[in-house]
Amino acid sequence: MSIDVVELARSLIACRSVTPADDGALAVLDRALTGLGFATEHLSFGPAGEETPNLFARLGSSGPHLCFAGHTDVVPPGDGWSADPFGGTIRDGLLFGRGIADMKGGIAAFVSAVSSLLAQRPLNGSVSLLITGDEEGPARHGTKDVLPWMVEHGHRPDFCLVGEPTNPMHLGETIKIGRRGSLNACITIEGTQGHVAYPHLADNPVHRLIAILGELTGRELDRGNAHFSASSLQVVSIDVGNPATNVIPQKASAVLNIRFNTEHRGETLLRWIEACVERHAPGRGRIESQISGEAFLTEPAAPVRALQDVIARHTGNAALLDTGGGTSDARFITSVCPVAEFGLVGATMHKADECVPVADLETLVGIYRDFLEAFGL
Amino acid sequence: MSIDVVELARSLIACRSVTPADDGALAVLDRALTGLGFATEHLSFGPAGEETPNLFARLGSSGPHLCFAGHTDVVPPGDGWSADPFGGTIRDGLLFGRGIADMKGGIAAFVSAVSSLLAQRPLNGSVSLLITGDEEGPARHGTKDVLPWMVEHGHRPDFCLVGEPTNPMHLGETIKIGRRGSLNACITIEGTQGHVAYPHLADNPVHRLIAILGELTGRELDRGNAHFSASSLQVVSIDVGNPATNVIPQKASAVLNIRFNTEHRGETLLRWIEACVERHAPGRGRIESQISGEAFLTEPAAPVRALQDVIARHTGNAALLDTGGGTSDARFITSVCPVAEFGLVGATMHKADECVPVADLETLVGIYRDFLEAFGL
Ligand SMILES: [Zn+2]
Ligand SMILES: [Zn+2]
Repeated sequence: MSIDVVELARSLIACRSVTPADDGALAVLDRALTGLGFATEHLSFGPAGEETPNLFARLGSSGPHLCFAGHTDVVPPGDGWSADPFGGTIRDGLLFGRGIADMKGGIAAFVSAVSSLLAQRPLNGSVSLLITGDEEGPARHGTKDVLPWMVEHGHRPDFCLVGEPTNPMHLGETIKIGRRGSLNACITIEGTQGHVAYPHLADNPVHRLIAILGELTGRELDRGNAHFSASSLQVVSIDVGNPATNVIPQKASAVLNIRFNTEHRGETLLRWIEACVERHAPGRGRIESQISGEAFLTEPAAPVRALQDVIARHTGNAALLDTGGGTSDARFITSVCPVAEFGLVGATMHKADECVPVADLETLVGIYRDFLEAFGL
Repeated sequence: MSIDVVELARSLIACRSVTPADDGALAVLDRALTGLGFATEHLSFGPAGEETPNLFARLGSSGPHLCFAGHTDVVPPGDGWSADPFGGTIRDGLLFGRGIADMKGGIAAFVSAVSSLLAQRPLNGSVSLLITGDEEGPARHGTKDVLPWMVEHGHRPDFCLVGEPTNPMHLGETIKIGRRGSLNACITIEGTQGHVAYPHLADNPVHRLIAILGELTGRELDRGNAHFSASSLQVVSIDVGNPATNVIPQKASAVLNIRFNTEHRGETLLRWIEACVERHAPGRGRIESQISGEAFLTEPAAPVRALQDVIARHTGNAALLDTGGGTSDARFITSVCPVAEFGLVGATMHKADECVPVADLETLVGIYRDFLEAFGL
C-alpha cells in the first residue's frame, strides 16, 4: 500500500499547526507510519501544560540506520493569500498551503518514498523519523530534547537527512551540509548621568558604547573558508531613549548578532566581546547573551556524495554543497550523527501563497527513495 | 523714596510666573520703576494668543547707558518644599521662594540700587532694564526680540549687566564674561533592511552611525583657551528601536550636543558633522540641527574690572571671570553690546527650597549701586 505524496501533504496542510499548535498533524503522520509498520513514540517535553509534542518513529532495528528529521509546525499564514492557507488548493500544477515548502511537503515525500520502497521489498537496516511540533518557535523542547532520548533508547542514527526547503529556486540546486552558528548579545553600559555643560561631572555611557561597537564592528572575523562564507557581526539595535538634549544619559545598550562559521566557537566570541566591554567600560558593562547554535559542518563523505548523484539523476542539477542561510534543527543533530539537509524549493516559505509544484513533490519522492537504496536500506 | 530689596523681592515671588505665565510680575516691576521716574514700555512678541510679555524701562536719555537684563519667569516649583514656593518666607536669615535666586532677587536688588542712588542725587547718563517673561522656556520671543526693538528705538546700551545667579556657593565668587555656544544635531541614517544571515543584501545603518559617532567623539575639538574650558561633544541618545535580533534595521539615529568655546563657530562645526556623515554614509544621512547660541566673550575691559573692584570691596572676594555652565540670554545681548553677568548664589536654583540669605540681597544692592557709580551714572 503505497502512500500518495500529494494526498498526505494535503492532509498535513489541513492541520492548522501554527506553532505551538499541533492540530492533529502528528496524528496524521502517526497513522501513515503505523500503517507502514513503523513503531511510533509520542514524546512530550517541556513545562507541564505547555509541552512540545514530538514524534519518533522507527521501522527495523538493525543497521544501517537512516533518520529523516523535520517539523510539522508552521509560521502564521499572514495576509495576502489567493487560496485558503489550509485548503490544499492545486492550481496550475502548484499545491498551495502554509508549510507545504517548509516543510510538510518534505515530510510527505519522505513517507511516500519509504512506502514506495516497501511496496517492492522489505527494508534492509532501519529508517526512522524525528518529527517535532516546535521548530519555528523557541525550539527548546523539540528536536533538542528528542535527540538525547533517542541516544538513550538505542536509536542513534548513522546519518540524518533534514527535509528543510534547501533549494532557492529549482529542485536539486542545493544540499546544506552545515550551518553557521548564531550568537546574540545585549550589551548595557552604566554611566553617570549629568548635564552636557558639565561633562567632567558625568560619565557618558553612549561614548563608551560607541568605542566598544567601533572595535567590535571593525574586526574582520575571518574571510570564510572552504565551505563557509565569512562570519558576520551585525549590531541590530542601539537604544538610549533620552529625550533631553542637554542631559548625558545614565545608561545605553546595544544588541548584536554574530553569524559565525567553523573558524569560531560561540564561547570564544563571547569572551572577546566581554574583554572589549571590560576594556572600554571597566566594571560598567553588563552582557546578556545567547548562543543559539554553534557552527557545524558535515564533511561531504559517502552519504552526501550519494545524495548528490541521486539528485543529478532525477533533476539534472549538480547540487551545491552549501552552508549559508539561517539556522535549523540540524544544529542540534550534528552532535549525535552526521547530518545533511535537502528538501523542496523554499522561494515562497514564510510568505503569502506558499506553494510548490506538484511535479517537485513527485520528483522529491523519487530522490528520497533512491537515496534510501543508495544508503543500503 | 528708596525701595526695599526684600519687600520688592517678596512682591515678585508672590507672582506665580511659571513660564509662560506672568501673573502680574512685570506690573509689579513697572509700578516700582515708574515710581522712580522710569519710562516703561510693555513689548509683546510672538504668535497671536501666545505672545511673550517683556518690559523695557529707561531712566535718562543721554550716555553712558547701562542696561540691566533679566527675567521674571521661573521654573515650576516641583515638590519637596519646606515653605510655600510663592510665600516669601524668611527663616534663619534666608528668604525662600521659587525664583528668588534665579532671578527675581537680582532684579529687586538692581531696582533697589537705582532707588538708593536716586535718593541721594540725580542720575548721570541713563540706566535701563530689559526684563523678559520667557527665559526659562523656549526664549524665542523674549530678550531676542526686545534687542532689535531697542536698537531701532535708540536704546542701544554701552554695557549690559545680566543679573543671573552666577555664584556657585558664595556671593562674589564669579562674574560670567562669556558663555559657550551650543549646537544640537540629530543624525539619521537610512540603510537597507535585511536578515542578519544575509548581510550582503542589506546595508546596516547602525554600522555607518557607529563609524560616524566614533569619528565625531574621537576628535579633540580644542584644549580650551584663556577664558574657556575645552569644547565638548556629547552624544546624548542613539535610538534604533529594533526588537528583532535577526533583522538588520532600516534606519538609526543619534542626537548629539556640542558646547563650544570661541575657538569655533556653530556653522563650522555643523559643516564638519555634515562632511563626516557624508563620508561614512554617502547620500544616506539626514541632519536636523539647531545652533541655540554662538560662543561669545566680553573682553575683560574697564566695566568688568570696575565690577570686580566693587565686588572685592563688598565681599572680600576676588571674583573669577568665568565662561562655564549653560546658556543664558547674554548669548543674544552680546551682538548688541558688551555683556557680563553677576547676581546671587545659584546653589538652590531650579531646586526645592530655592533661597538666598537676606544679607546677600542687601550686599548685592550695594554692589549694583557702587557699580552704577563706577560706570559714571
Ligand atoms: Zn523549516
Ligand atoms: Zn535665570
